[in-house]
Amino acid sequence: MSSSAITTEVNPAFVLHSIKNVSIENREIPKLRNEHDVRVHIEQTGICGSDVHYWQRGRIGDFILKSPIVLGHESSGTIVEIGKAVKNVKVGDRVAIEPGVPCRYCDFCREGAYNLCADTIFAATPPWDGTLQKYYTVASDYCYPIPAHMSPEDGAMVEPTAVAVQICKVADLRANQTVIVFGCGPIGVLCQAMAKAYGAKKVIGVDISKARTEFAKKYAADGVFVPERASAGTDPVDASRAIGEKIVAEFSLGEGADVVLECTGAEPCIQAGVYAAKKGGTYVQAGMGKENVIFPITTACIRALNIKGSIRYTAGCYQTAVDMVASGKIDVKFLITHRFKFEEAEQAFELVKKGQEGVLKVVIEGVL
Amino acid sequence: MSSSAITTEVNPAFVLHSIKNVSIENREIPKLRNEHDVRVHIEQTGICGSDVHYWQRGRIGDFILKSPIVLGHESSGTIVEIGKAVKNVKVGDRVAIEPGVPCRYCDFCREGAYNLCADTIFAATPPWDGTLQKYYTVASDYCYPIPAHMSPEDGAMVEPTAVAVQICKVADLRANQTVIVFGCGPIGVLCQAMAKAYGAKKVIGVDISKARTEFAKKYAADGVFVPERASAGTDPVDASRAIGEKIVAEFSLGEGADVVLECTGAEPCIQAGVYAAKKGGTYVQAGMGKENVIFPITTACIRALNIKGSIRYTAGCYQTAVDMVASGKIDVKFLITHRFKFEEAEQAFELVKKGQEGVLKVVIEGVL
Amino acid sequence: MSSSAITTEVNPAFVLHSIKNVSIENREIPKLRNEHDVRVHIEQTGICGSDVHYWQRGRIGDFILKSPIVLGHESSGTIVEIGKAVKNVKVGDRVAIEPGVPCRYCDFCREGAYNLCADTIFAATPPWDGTLQKYYTVASDYCYPIPAHMSPEDGAMVEPTAVAVQICKVADLRANQTVIVFGCGPIGVLCQAMAKAYGAKKVIGVDISKARTEFAKKYAADGVFVPERASAGTDPVDASRAIGEKIVAEFSLGEGADVVLECTGAEPCIQAGVYAAKKGGTYVQAGMGKENVIFPITTACIRALNIKGSIRYTAGCYQTAVDMVASGKIDVKFLITHRFKFEEAEQAFELVKKGQEGVLKVVIEGVL
Amino acid sequence: MSSSAITTEVNPAFVLHSIKNVSIENREIPKLRNEHDVRVHIEQTGICGSDVHYWQRGRIGDFILKSPIVLGHESSGTIVEIGKAVKNVKVGDRVAIEPGVPCRYCDFCREGAYNLCADTIFAATPPWDGTLQKYYTVASDYCYPIPAHMSPEDGAMVEPTAVAVQICKVADLRANQTVIVFGCGPIGVLCQAMAKAYGAKKVIGVDISKARTEFAKKYAADGVFVPERASAGTDPVDASRAIGEKIVAEFSLGEGADVVLECTGAEPCIQAGVYAAKKGGTYVQAGMGKENVIFPITTACIRALNIKGSIRYTAGCYQTAVDMVASGKIDVKFLITHRFKFEEAEQAFELVKKGQEGVLKVVIEGVL
Repeated sequence: MSSSAITTEVNPAFVLHSIKNVSIENREIPKLRNEHDVRVHIEQTGICGSDVHYWQRGRIGDFILKSPIVLGHESSGTIVEIGKAVKNVKVGDRVAIEPGVPCRYCDFCREGAYNLCADTIFAATPPWDGTLQKYYTVASDYCYPIPAHMSPEDGAMVEPTAVAVQICKVADLRANQTVIVFGCGPIGVLCQAMAKAYGAKKVIGVDISKARTEFAKKYAADGVFVPERASAGTDPVDASRAIGEKIVAEFSLGEGADVVLECTGAEPCIQAGVYAAKKGGTYVQAGMGKENVIFPITTACIRALNIKGSIRYTAGCYQTAVDMVASGKIDVKFLITHRFKFEEAEQAFELVKKGQEGVLKVVIEGVL
Repeated sequence: MSSSAITTEVNPAFVLHSIKNVSIENREIPKLRNEHDVRVHIEQTGICGSDVHYWQRGRIGDFILKSPIVLGHESSGTIVEIGKAVKNVKVGDRVAIEPGVPCRYCDFCREGAYNLCADTIFAATPPWDGTLQKYYTVASDYCYPIPAHMSPEDGAMVEPTAVAVQICKVADLRANQTVIVFGCGPIGVLCQAMAKAYGAKKVIGVDISKARTEFAKKYAADGVFVPERASAGTDPVDASRAIGEKIVAEFSLGEGADVVLECTGAEPCIQAGVYAAKKGGTYVQAGMGKENVIFPITTACIRALNIKGSIRYTAGCYQTAVDMVASGKIDVKFLITHRFKFEEAEQAFELVKKGQEGVLKVVIEGVL
Repeated sequence: MSSSAITTEVNPAFVLHSIKNVSIENREIPKLRNEHDVRVHIEQTGICGSDVHYWQRGRIGDFILKSPIVLGHESSGTIVEIGKAVKNVKVGDRVAIEPGVPCRYCDFCREGAYNLCADTIFAATPPWDGTLQKYYTVASDYCYPIPAHMSPEDGAMVEPTAVAVQICKVADLRANQTVIVFGCGPIGVLCQAMAKAYGAKKVIGVDISKARTEFAKKYAADGVFVPERASAGTDPVDASRAIGEKIVAEFSLGEGADVVLECTGAEPCIQAGVYAAKKGGTYVQAGMGKENVIFPITTACIRALNIKGSIRYTAGCYQTAVDMVASGKIDVKFLITHRFKFEEAEQAFELVKKGQEGVLKVVIEGVL
Repeated sequence: MSSSAITTEVNPAFVLHSIKNVSIENREIPKLRNEHDVRVHIEQTGICGSDVHYWQRGRIGDFILKSPIVLGHESSGTIVEIGKAVKNVKVGDRVAIEPGVPCRYCDFCREGAYNLCADTIFAATPPWDGTLQKYYTVASDYCYPIPAHMSPEDGAMVEPTAVAVQICKVADLRANQTVIVFGCGPIGVLCQAMAKAYGAKKVIGVDISKARTEFAKKYAADGVFVPERASAGTDPVDASRAIGEKIVAEFSLGEGADVVLECTGAEPCIQAGVYAAKKGGTYVQAGMGKENVIFPITTACIRALNIKGSIRYTAGCYQTAVDMVASGKIDVKFLITHRFKFEEAEQAFELVKKGQEGVLKVVIEGVL
């Protein structure tokens, strides 16, 4: 399908029909569902592991692909239509789009924990369509204007930045704390940069990929650590404990880190993280891997740790993410390693699937 | 050794010499170590699982019996001598004794987390002597006067009550919350009663012993649950999940309990507890069993749980425990099932070791 | 207008036309505004000081009566019609109505502080109609089912109970705290009862009316205090300080109360409250009187007080209030001193206006 | 007295004998009071308004000069002697000295609120001697090692920096918040710089001195504001409200600042601060002026403000201050405008007393 072909269509969309089966097809332009909705012309979209996961496996947890959906949920664009009750944005505004709009009526929504709302319409989560289409309709208060000096790419990168904001918020990260971040992928390094922007005293990035830690060091981390493989015959938890303690010793973290942000979901990292946290410290589980892991619960108990799960984003995260990018405190451009045209979307997904060290963040341009 | 023989001695003490080797022997009367110390004539002492553990195994974690120690740490008594700087108590005052006196100089002490102080002198924790002796010397601010209507037994029971206060404090338990407590032993049922005293809406006690749950029901719980053994071939975590969900369903806890207090340390309870907590809910690990367990970390993450370890007690817990017993909000007498004379101390330990359903709390009278 | 006449009308309403000018008139039955709305047949309505204030003065702060409104906002009733998206209630359910429905779109709403939403539709607050009419239309999630054993009067009393819940929530009131409540009117005594339900150790009620303190003593307070008038020539703040210190001394509150709940808005109470709070304690301003008062700011600073304003209610307060009444922990019937028929509404308002000591809570029956 | 004369003396000290009556005299070298004490050779001491206040008035609040005391409490120096229990420092270590050592035994100390301890030994607060002497003896845990690249002056400046840390801690200041700081004196500008180090989005400094605001702008503030004098006949609170609202409007703070730090104690600033805070925002009273002020309590209530007093420092503040200076995040050298020799101490006090715009921070060199 040629590029010129696409642009003549009304609303080209990158659709996941079934497992591993995607195509660009023309869809009806989505309509405003109520007077608070706006329609956005999508300009850039980042690809996330979860997009690839749906494409390859058709499900994440209880969210199962049963009918085709449009993929993509990390997007920016320009407002082209607004409902009559909309006050916060106007046509022509350039915005970053928060991809999950909660129900506003349940107890979670009413108490401000809208990330826990079970009735959230989340872009590219079955059965909801995502943003990899020319036009996307969304509630106006989930659109955040971006200043002129932020590019559409910057706007798309607000999404992973907001994930990092939420993780730091869950951690109640405060100035002058020491922080270990497990994982130097996009979320990991954004957490490292965010921790620095929050005034952290020392931020250590951990990853099994040396190349990724080297990137992290250049990006924001004060120090990085590449765990060695445990020698054969070692008890796995003992090996993880040794890693945790080695990080603490190597970077002079005293009795342990004030805060551990676990962004991998890998069992050894989870275990090492518990052992690397100081007594009374905070450990945030943000990465997701195996459903169940062997966990040093007695250590967690004796050390009086605060272990918290972070999921999606809550009120204020998206605006903070916009502000952090706009002010230059977080440099998101630096994370984008590959760029694709809309009609190359499948190639972009193929690239992310491979998980090469040199591929950090991949973005897809919208339909002009 | 006859009772009359004991009372003529200067400071009879129940000493653990080595694993499984105890005897009553005369010891020097402990001296005040500084002007803030007081000497207490011990009147009643409760026995705790940890006392039995040291007796049978000689160690708990990093605390290892290397030389003989006096056992016992849940005690009340009467002040018989005070240092010259002591202001909060006077000779003749009847007091409950908080058994761990921290260093007062480390960062944990200075920030109010003295339960995490590594240099705490904790009664009956190697190498420190405990309270099963005629006299015990302790810092005056770790002695809490008890009113005339509280008996020495009540005073000894302040210790497990304070453990329950700390657990509820760690949980940040607030009025009208729903609470599941795993475990209907002494700490479990005290947590259940404390949760009610904190204004909890509904408190459910869980135990594999039907007799213990029946006791819990009579004592404080609004409802109790006895998990059935998982059928052969079931995945253990799935089985635990089923238990957690069944508790929630059976007691109409909606999306799950606001608060889960885990007081057993048993792996299936830990797992069930995570599944029984509502999104955004709080889970406190207070029981200690296996060092590592299979843990549903992804559920903890997705549900944005707050998982916290509770250990010992912090500022205010002991006073609150005294107040709760003094006001009658917590009835501790009801928990004492067996009473022994000082010279029968070993028999008391033997009884606790057996762990029979009908044995809840065992106390040992002090030397007259 | 005779009672029989009213019941034949479609939607009789008690309307405030202008200052001091009210009448019962027939109004159109309010329609559901969207699919989340329900229509309630109002059964009981309590009268609040603010209702009387609008009647007598036509304004409270920036809310100014510019066109007629229906009065009343403390109501219960039965659902008679539901929108098609409504899931939490059904026709026939008996409910307590939370009178303020926020916009759901602003930052305050999204972060769970919906009591601060500037676009709240609040019953009987200009320009919004209240509940003193046969039918009232409201968002379904602001209706809370009440159990069969709660009467319509109990349901109406959920409103002031929820105010007390919010005040205790703002105070972060926890078990075993000492609490001084200034004011023994309906909100004051409900705060006293609520503090007890939250596990407070000691609750002291303060009022210049001896009769009101006597009621408070019978109702929930552990102790009460009637301040004497300051002698001529005393500096007013010194006099207030003396009152605050006298309360602390008389009720053995040590260095001061853990929590002060100020429910009068009276300048001497505000001042006395600051002096009655312990260092590091919490003071909640819930009463409203003069716009500005002479305030001991240096004492507030040196004592490191936490001074917080409480306004309306936030998520969970209404449900907690229903639960507290349903469980019998809060006895609201005891507060109702006078009952009126709908057609006697103006008499009811006249009675409340007089502010007699013996008049605590006045309720008006709905139109059958 | 010549410099050479001083250095031959054993322990020269700058003593306040009575109001306005100071002199340098030789004092006995202070001895270690217990095994946790250390003796410090003082190298630099900053002068604070409270030092001058004792000199000119002989009292601050309940602290009254009854017998001579050594002045000074913002000091750095080198450890010259340590008690046998001291582990955190050794002879030769260069340290910043936290000037208040609490009792360690009261409830405030035990719960981590040691700034509220009534038995604190605070340097240069009657009856306790201060640090303007050759040697000062203090508890070792109140000495904080400073790295080689921090000068003695930097070390002395840790004290006001720690005050700013405590103020930000009390404010629970978090990244991306908007902050208004009233006052551009040393504490004010340090709060502004600290807020930036904490990741604040926008920090506005307010002062009636244009010169001070110009300094603040150069130092750390994103914007500054000089209030104009209210026109005659304006109600003072209305005038303050107008100032508060003007600051919000001029710096596009939306509905108001997230955080207001009041560092002047001036009545108009206090009032303006309340009006400049957003609904649900935080206001910290750190400055001290008049005992009582006219305060907009109803606005504080309706806006649900969190108003908190900040006094001295709590656990962690001093270490954070050292870290902030050591890392270069806070540039304290920039604040020092005048330097004096020890024998010129009285001149230094005279200069600070004048309160000229160009005099920010004055330091006095210790006795060699």
